[in-house]
Amino acid sequence: MNVIYMDNNNGTAVTPEVLEAMLPYFTEKCGNPLSLHDLGNEAREAVEEARARVASLIGGKPAEIIFTSTGSESNNLAIRGLSAGLSAKGKHIIVSNIEHFSVLQTAASLEKEGYQITQIPVDKYGLVDPEDVRKAIRKDTALVSIMMANGEVGTLEPLAEISRITREQGVVFHTDAVAAAGNIPINVVELGIDALSLAGNMFFGPKGGAALWFRRGLRLTPQTMGGVQEGGRRAGTENVPAIVGLGKAAQMAQQRMTQRMEKVTALRDTLIKHLPEVIEHVVVTGHPQKRLPYHASFCVEFIEGESMLMLLNLSGIAISSGSSCSSRALKASHVLTALGLPSEIVQGSIIFGLSELNTPEDVESVIKNFPPVVSRLRGMSPLWAKYLKSKGEKPYASV
Amino acid sequence: MNVIYMDNNNGTAVTPEVLEAMLPYFTEKCGNPLSLHDLGNEAREAVEEARARVASLIGGKPAEIIFTSTGSESNNLAIRGLSAGLSAKGKHIIVSNIEHFSVLQTAASLEKEGYQITQIPVDKYGLVDPEDVRKAIRKDTALVSIMMANGEVGTLEPLAEISRITREQGVVFHTDAVAAAGNIPINVVELGIDALSLAGNMFFGPKGGAALWFRRGLRLTPQTMGGVQEGGRRAGTENVPAIVGLGKAAQMAQQRMTQRMEKVTALRDTLIKHLPEVIEHVVVTGHPQKRLPYHASFCVEFIEGESMLMLLNLSGIAISSGSSCSSRALKASHVLTALGLPSEIVQGSIIFGLSELNTPEDVESVIKNFPPVVSRLRGMSPLWAKYLKSKGEKPYASV
Repeated sequence: MNVIYMDNNNGTAVTPEVLEAMLPYFTEKCGNPLSLHDLGNEAREAVEEARARVASLIGGKPAEIIFTSTGSESNNLAIRGLSAGLSAKGKHIIVSNIEHFSVLQTAASLEKEGYQITQIPVDKYGLVDPEDVRKAIRKDTALVSIMMANGEVGTLEPLAEISRITREQGVVFHTDAVAAAGNIPINVVELGIDALSLAGNMFFGPKGGAALWFRRGLRLTPQTMGGVQEGGRRAGTENVPAIVGLGKAAQMAQQRMTQRMEKVTALRDTLIKHLPEVIEHVVVTGHPQKRLPYHASFCVEFIEGESMLMLLNLSGIAISSGSSCSSRALKASHVLTALGLPSEIVQGSIIFGLSELNTPEDVESVIKNFPPVVSRLRGMSPLWAKYLKSKGEKPYASV
Repeated sequence: MNVIYMDNNNGTAVTPEVLEAMLPYFTEKCGNPLSLHDLGNEAREAVEEARARVASLIGGKPAEIIFTSTGSESNNLAIRGLSAGLSAKGKHIIVSNIEHFSVLQTAASLEKEGYQITQIPVDKYGLVDPEDVRKAIRKDTALVSIMMANGEVGTLEPLAEISRITREQGVVFHTDAVAAAGNIPINVVELGIDALSLAGNMFFGPKGGAALWFRRGLRLTPQTMGGVQEGGRRAGTENVPAIVGLGKAAQMAQQRMTQRMEKVTALRDTLIKHLPEVIEHVVVTGHPQKRLPYHASFCVEFIEGESMLMLLNLSGIAISSGSSCSSRALKASHVLTALGLPSEIVQGSIIFGLSELNTPEDVESVIKNFPPVVSRLRGMSPLWAKYLKSKGEKPYASV
């Protein structure tokens, strides 16, 4: 079966160009970048070329990029590593309440070490109000970490507005851009931010290739010790193929940004427009406009997201229901809950993560296959039966 | 130029079989292991198959394996993560003084947090005396971390003898087996150890695929937070291709262990026997017998290791001079210094990391190419001139 892959929000495939760039570094170009012979030099040069490409994607300087293994590692490193360097200023950290767990849990672990954490709430679209950040900033605020885009509801946060406040107040501002980087234009200088996490497997790069950018002059305490790699800030042999792949993916994302965005935006908008037309009681989650171009998310009432995606899976459609990092945690999404959605709606969360590899036919197929899945599940749903009864309608006679 | 690659101690190439196993997971099998659709399930199953293979390589149980990105990360996680879980017992940690920096620096960072670290010295071969471990153990000793084999001098430590003591004393015993795993037979149960770090790129697996094994029942505090991956003990999207490659490399290492060992042992012994015959003032470093089968290391007096490897590089021979993690740190090797070698000898360190891809002809070529390199460098060495003068000989007239 030809799979319609719309789970790109949980990771993309690697494009042929990216894979081709990586391949030699598994075999004939196997050198350790720290080795002083030709194979070592070659690997080191490849790593530095990738560093320049990743820096260019976000408008930063190559020396400001540290390669990591995952977006989560980048977030951990940013929160812990920057906080440590800023502890002279204070031990107060501000985050939004819809951050990824790699931000929230790292902040929570610092709380046990004497830090204080303020969680900023979001509105029903998942938007942070910059004025809330201003109000939350204290004299001892060391760090603000607010994501660029939320991976569950797609909402883009007003980073430029927030950074105007953090700069005015002299507070360091990190953003988790894992869901955004490579998918929308980013310029860290224009945005006025201080640190940014990104992951290649969100834009056709390989798993294992991620990065943390942080502004020159900031102190970062290493979280993995024991080697001179990455300027002594992240020990361990560089994953050369993954770094090269990340660099190639960054270069391609920069080159194809506009056309990719146009394509996925059209697909996204078709889904957002038509899905609620063919299924009743569907809520679009996140902001209708201020959202990732590749991201369409919904809550379908009275049924469970996981049941939907499992049935769609049988039709060869691969989607997800919430963040992969918590998909097996069996908890109501903290993001959807933060948006104020009631728990009986939250459980019906589904996410379509599109890519330029998807076609209008793929979206048509989803719109065709989705209603029968919903009918079938609602036919088994006591909640739906109860709802129909309350409206004086009979539940489906048979499914 | 066909390169004679003898820098396998700093990382191997990936074999065709390993690469072939990895390839589908970059493209058509791109699913996130946490996703609930077929592509996710397929990725998850591949990760679990790899886990079983890695566990089998060292005689552990699959559930006891955590995948990491590098051997250094495994060591950091072991030292920090296990110490935290054992802090009720005490805050004393014992290491040898020739551990890798990812062990030493992590221990040093804990020292700042109230831990006490005892460094056990080694003898002139780099061997730890188990009785020194016994003497160092205190009531508050939480953890002993002594490496299985040293990557700079190849010496194999007496782990079974040490573990007899740690078990008797009820102290948790971690070993950094990055240089050893996949290259010599290991059975963690027979060895009586509690935790072990390994890295696939030391035995034909890919960079980016490493693991920490730790005995069931031990508590490990995660060092990267924010996801349910690896049982919540290492957040971040699994690097599926690297994990699959690590698994395949582990399987092949297990299958080919004997023949690989026989082959590299013969090459190693030829180097150790003949190199000191063709060059005067060469010292074999590490233990002459109790050493890694693939590892031959020397100090050449009066000249610098880096100069030698750069000239050998011109002849297409790729070797190293000390640990890659410190090769650019421009410091005398802490390992060679710990063996009691004087600094003028230490600087002449060179390491041959062999693999089954090397041939007897490769070794012949090294033995042929090496003496002219040494002559040339000694011809420029004031130390050598001084030495000859002291012996009443004229230095080389011209080089």
